[in-house]
Amino acid sequence: MDEDNVVYVGNKPVMNYVLAIVTQFNNGAKEVTVKARGRAISRAVDVTEVTKHRFLKEAAVKDIKIGTEKMVSERGGTNISTMEIVLGLD
Amino acid sequence: MDEDNVVYVGNKPVMNYVLAIVTQFNNGAKEVTVKARGRAISRAVDVTEVTKHRFLKEAAVKDIKIGTEKMVSERGGTNISTMEIVLGLD
Repeated sequence: MDEDNVVYVGNKPVMNYVLAIVTQFNNGAKEVTVKARGRAISRAVDVTEVTKHRFLKEAAVKDIKIGTEKMVSERGGTNISTMEIVLGLD
Repeated sequence: MDEDNVVYVGNKPVMNYVLAIVTQFNNGAKEVTVKARGRAISRAVDVTEVTKHRFLKEAAVKDIKIGTEKMVSERGGTNISTMEIVLGLD
């Protein structure tokens, strides 16, 4: 979870990820990328919106990308959607 | 659900929405906007990815926007995240 300037959103409460983002900006990051897969994508949007509106009003969405990753499980391969949101300071 | 060039993604199976998008392009739309709120945002990304990879290989994501809407319910107001994905033909 400590890759530079990247926050991976999973199943924890939204505020955990918001705090991770705010911490990275406070440590000098110019941009932070919020990444999520599958159902966590909705939460990644929540995290981004809460960060912008409640904690870092000068933060803005610089880029959003969506994609597909192949996952290999016991039952064979499946596809899972991915999203990356790049947050920067205005 | 029949607004021009807009597909609202909710709780139905992904393929329902994929077919709605493909139909709109077949009817002459140059762009189709996929909209979702809350937990359906993850599904909207799935819908977009399945459309691009399996049904309309010439379709591309032109723009993605995220935002917040205020919802008023019996227990007061809450915020809900929103997403819009604009799909166009290359």
